[in-house]
Amino acid sequence: MFNSFGNILKLTTFGESHGVAIGGVIDGFPAGMKVDFDAVQQELDRRKPGQSKIVTQRKEPDTVEFLSGIFEGVTTGASIGFTIKNTNQKSKDYNHNTDVYRPSHADYTYDKKYGTRDYRGGGRTSARETANWVVAGALAKQLINHININAFTSSVGDVFMMKPYQDLDFSKTESNIVRCPDETSAEKMIDKIQEIRKAGDTIGGTITCVAQNVPIGLGEPIFHKLHAELGKAMLSINAVKGFEFGSGFCGAKMQGSEHNDIFNPDGTTQSNLSGGIQGGVSNGMDIYFRVAFKPVATIMQNQSTINSKGEASEIHGKGRHDPCVVPRAVPIVEALTALVFADFWLMDKTRRI
Amino acid sequence: MFNSFGNILKLTTFGESHGVAIGGVIDGFPAGMKVDFDAVQQELDRRKPGQSKIVTQRKEPDTVEFLSGIFEGVTTGASIGFTIKNTNQKSKDYNHNTDVYRPSHADYTYDKKYGTRDYRGGGRTSARETANWVVAGALAKQLINHININAFTSSVGDVFMMKPYQDLDFSKTESNIVRCPDETSAEKMIDKIQEIRKAGDTIGGTITCVAQNVPIGLGEPIFHKLHAELGKAMLSINAVKGFEFGSGFCGAKMQGSEHNDIFNPDGTTQSNLSGGIQGGVSNGMDIYFRVAFKPVATIMQNQSTINSKGEASEIHGKGRHDPCVVPRAVPIVEALTALVFADFWLMDKTRRI
Amino acid sequence: MFNSFGNILKLTTFGESHGVAIGGVIDGFPAGMKVDFDAVQQELDRRKPGQSKIVTQRKEPDTVEFLSGIFEGVTTGASIGFTIKNTNQKSKDYNHNTDVYRPSHADYTYDKKYGTRDYRGGGRTSARETANWVVAGALAKQLINHININAFTSSVGDVFMMKPYQDLDFSKTESNIVRCPDETSAEKMIDKIQEIRKAGDTIGGTITCVAQNVPIGLGEPIFHKLHAELGKAMLSINAVKGFEFGSGFCGAKMQGSEHNDIFNPDGTTQSNLSGGIQGGVSNGMDIYFRVAFKPVATIMQNQSTINSKGEASEIHGKGRHDPCVVPRAVPIVEALTALVFADFWLMDKTRRI
Amino acid sequence: MFNSFGNILKLTTFGESHGVAIGGVIDGFPAGMKVDFDAVQQELDRRKPGQSKIVTQRKEPDTVEFLSGIFEGVTTGASIGFTIKNTNQKSKDYNHNTDVYRPSHADYTYDKKYGTRDYRGGGRTSARETANWVVAGALAKQLINHININAFTSSVGDVFMMKPYQDLDFSKTESNIVRCPDETSAEKMIDKIQEIRKAGDTIGGTITCVAQNVPIGLGEPIFHKLHAELGKAMLSINAVKGFEFGSGFCGAKMQGSEHNDIFNPDGTTQSNLSGGIQGGVSNGMDIYFRVAFKPVATIMQNQSTINSKGEASEIHGKGRHDPCVVPRAVPIVEALTALVFADFWLMDKTRRI
Repeated sequence: MFNSFGNILKLTTFGESHGVAIGGVIDGFPAGMKVDFDAVQQELDRRKPGQSKIVTQRKEPDTVEFLSGIFEGVTTGASIGFTIKNTNQKSKDYNHNTDVYRPSHADYTYDKKYGTRDYRGGGRTSARETANWVVAGALAKQLINHININAFTSSVGDVFMMKPYQDLDFSKTESNIVRCPDETSAEKMIDKIQEIRKAGDTIGGTITCVAQNVPIGLGEPIFHKLHAELGKAMLSINAVKGFEFGSGFCGAKMQGSEHNDIFNPDGTTQSNLSGGIQGGVSNGMDIYFRVAFKPVATIMQNQSTINSKGEASEIHGKGRHDPCVVPRAVPIVEALTALVFADFWLMDKTRRI
Repeated sequence: MFNSFGNILKLTTFGESHGVAIGGVIDGFPAGMKVDFDAVQQELDRRKPGQSKIVTQRKEPDTVEFLSGIFEGVTTGASIGFTIKNTNQKSKDYNHNTDVYRPSHADYTYDKKYGTRDYRGGGRTSARETANWVVAGALAKQLINHININAFTSSVGDVFMMKPYQDLDFSKTESNIVRCPDETSAEKMIDKIQEIRKAGDTIGGTITCVAQNVPIGLGEPIFHKLHAELGKAMLSINAVKGFEFGSGFCGAKMQGSEHNDIFNPDGTTQSNLSGGIQGGVSNGMDIYFRVAFKPVATIMQNQSTINSKGEASEIHGKGRHDPCVVPRAVPIVEALTALVFADFWLMDKTRRI
Repeated sequence: MFNSFGNILKLTTFGESHGVAIGGVIDGFPAGMKVDFDAVQQELDRRKPGQSKIVTQRKEPDTVEFLSGIFEGVTTGASIGFTIKNTNQKSKDYNHNTDVYRPSHADYTYDKKYGTRDYRGGGRTSARETANWVVAGALAKQLINHININAFTSSVGDVFMMKPYQDLDFSKTESNIVRCPDETSAEKMIDKIQEIRKAGDTIGGTITCVAQNVPIGLGEPIFHKLHAELGKAMLSINAVKGFEFGSGFCGAKMQGSEHNDIFNPDGTTQSNLSGGIQGGVSNGMDIYFRVAFKPVATIMQNQSTINSKGEASEIHGKGRHDPCVVPRAVPIVEALTALVFADFWLMDKTRRI
Repeated sequence: MFNSFGNILKLTTFGESHGVAIGGVIDGFPAGMKVDFDAVQQELDRRKPGQSKIVTQRKEPDTVEFLSGIFEGVTTGASIGFTIKNTNQKSKDYNHNTDVYRPSHADYTYDKKYGTRDYRGGGRTSARETANWVVAGALAKQLINHININAFTSSVGDVFMMKPYQDLDFSKTESNIVRCPDETSAEKMIDKIQEIRKAGDTIGGTITCVAQNVPIGLGEPIFHKLHAELGKAMLSINAVKGFEFGSGFCGAKMQGSEHNDIFNPDGTTQSNLSGGIQGGVSNGMDIYFRVAFKPVATIMQNQSTINSKGEASEIHGKGRHDPCVVPRAVPIVEALTALVFADFWLMDKTRRI
């Protein structure tokens, strides 16, 4: 109930950043799919720390070990267990936080909720958990490889990439370290992050995700609308503060006569303010949405705070943290999107006789 | 799986706008609560059509009948079944739509997904379903009556209520028909809707919701974060295109040094950009979020469209529809918020020995 | 969680025997099935009270009203809501039990668990609930009409029908009021029940169920084995004390060399001690199982008992109760069996690419 | 959905007998419990192969490694991941079975269902999976350590231990290798198994389980009755063919006047044919049930069978298998029973205000 995501295709995860390993179980994965293990590792590499100068310099190889559910390279229909060992964890980086509540982290809420907490690097709340999602998402991508999912950085602080996604070449997303397919914007974003990093500060940003070639009919009314599940998935990512799809918050300013998507004879629509989803169900048009990430809470500056006794304390980020979480979150957004689509694709197989 | 919402406190619903009745089952409701039936009806009345000049003029009394789970006015722990009869349904208003796909409605996607559809007034996709949610939410409100939940209209089109919620008197929300507690803004919003209505058009808007006095510790990592469930709930409401909480999309432009909420000695925070939730768990501060609604798709203007054979057709809204969905959605937002809190409040009872 | 059964095809129910109505929601039912309403009513009639001299003489017409999910006689994929009104309920029959715990009923446990209870006729614990299951099962039967499900009374007290099921003509089950397809045994059973009834007593019995033409591959390891779900379903029926399938408890006395089912070249097996299920998955052979029902707790004799204060009291059954629950439970066993098969049939659609 | 057990306390497992490791995730475990790791290992040792002359001589140390959810020896409320490495697996023992369907195993059904299978030692269907359950059950036992759960071997083939459980000293269950607390019966059972083993054959048996000191009120109507979940749990164990509780199948022969459990003034009952459960809810009396195990399918004798092409083949058990599964299943029965009770104990915390 608490650590599971999905309905038929269900990911259940475990692990703390400084424990032995993180990992999970992928249940409901259909039998008969040949697994491309390199593709899985490639996704993990896109997420891993230390990959460029604008992300955390921690080194974690993030190698996944599949323990079950795949036999002779093919999924068997059995649950797929996997682990990712925690290596090179400098837990001493975190020892100074043992009894101190870091501002805008979950230290305080966990302590109050559970009466105890694993204070090493945020424990279960660490974004290291997202490596598990990337593993499952990488398999899901292979399962629904007819759907193209492309996420990219669309803003860093007040640097916005203004081009409509239709003008972008998604193959360029990986060509720069900030993962923005528009080179000019990418440079500005990288400069922004560098500047913020030097100030010992962090910055927020947004990711846009576009899913193309989605079959018509994915999504389940009433309480499993496709966009509602996508929204829930995105809001599960650490640091996410908002989600909008199609016209989003702009749509709230519009009139029906301009917002309605008029049909072409083949069922496609002339505009796509609906964002590819109508009544919670995909209509075959591009699905696109935008996700807002707040700035990382750990900054390399002095901050006053309190400890568990309510005594005044001071904190200064010492670990190796991301100045901006957005570049590394791009594969995470794609992974969860793939999981949602794969799950709904399986669900849809049961909805008509 | 498809028509259920919640984990321990679970609402399962059914019903089409032009069927015999809509209704649902509330499962997991604890025993021993004295039910205030008037309060339930009051919430239904806030949602019902025909209540003012700026909403649809359809007349539906929306009287709930509880069929089980309440004995001598007290919940018994058994599932609570209820129905709301469909009365005064002019289904002939919809007969002209039998084979025509209304733009930006779910007609097309349902037809493609299910191979069949109830074309009367949108069938299962009708927002009439939300009356079910209001019933369940009204009971949930009574269960967690220590939490204050106040939603209100914060924008209609480009008319924004700019005051911070802290400056508002929520008791005034019901004093005007657009449900904006700021009278000056309310008047402008009402004028806007009147103007749009006369043009046979519709308009979008936003609702802000504030939950106060939420106990510390509600919310379940990793995949049932409090804000992720709230987001999913809001995105389940018809016409919703976006959700943000705390700093939201603005937070994506900020730096960590300005975004972090510094603790007071008592565990409260000096600012509250986190929106009352850290690591998916409530921290005792106000929880606030904003929901974007697109304009209603049914407009009183001619629109070109297609029928199920892909033939060009024309459509002109004939039913009695809302020019702006936002005023009537205020109690719906509150109802789902109450359901989420009640569910997490129950879940939290199991999380410590 | 509490009042739902099934995974993809999920039945959620509500209702007390003396409330306004009982009913439920069938979620996940596929679109496109033409509903045979007469067949549904026929199943309800098999279960209803008052149908013969050996069952309770209460008269309840048990007419189901479908409220949603079926349009122009065809399922739409939307949730199917239904109610069965409670009529002709002589609640005064039960008034004497207001504060008395009936022996071997659930009065005591409900009171202790919930701190309150609906004392009218057992409230939620009444076997009237099973009418809901029969409705859902009747639809499930139509969905998987390629599978033949036949339950019958195989013993009443110490009167056992000894013929192997292969020698029976299932079309004769409905030809007698005890629902045993072997006429000779049926007569003895009826005599037994008559005799017991005259003594103001009740008696237990067993039902055997045979499912034929089950497709190979239904059932989900590890925790949704086909027989485990069937067992859970049967153990959910009021008064059931035991479940066995295939060789059952007899199998526990056997040796592997005699118990193993040797294959024929076509994959069928020479014997079928496995009961049509191997490793939790159907193998295409007949599935058969046996369900034990205890005698009804309400007897027309004086019994000493206690009230809620722990004071000694006396009780004497006054309502119109079944001397033997087994004949009316035959359609209930079939209904739940059909629900399980339909659910697994849908699940199986997702298990291979 | 497929590999998970439980509702609030949920175990999700993975692993094949000859893969890298088996393991699982325990979700919903409350925070704040000090873990007794030795007690966990002790339970695993009770289940492990090679512990005596009457069980399989395979040597598997079965050491569990906890990967998360426990910090400084105390549960944190986070999901508990664990693995048990597969060591000393002689997969060559199984190579001869690559394409042959073993009679009364799941080879055939898995192949037909999934179109592929892990043929090494039964893959996912191996009873090795039950080691995962024992780990989770051992933690559950510690969580509900006020409940005493004692399972024991009550029959092997036609050797029955006839004493009522009230006359047994459960502390003697572990004093003999067949796990029957009655020494005289134990000796006969051991002789029986030895004899069967020498014949290259296998034999079935039954396990009885008694739970004492169960709080009143555990169990959830309508579809999560305590005994129904226990039944489902037991029927999930490999080789189980039947389940009965309280009076069980004998109850089906009885009359209400002899079967009813008359109350004492304190709410206990004079007899306990109900088996400690009324209306699906525990009544504070002892809960007892009996589980039937068929003989192990792998025998050390020649058996004719078929391969995947339907060609006649012959098979002769070569691995090291149990002549009787019952002695090693005793801790498995206890483990699942503990999981069920712990889950319902948590659920019950949410059922009253």
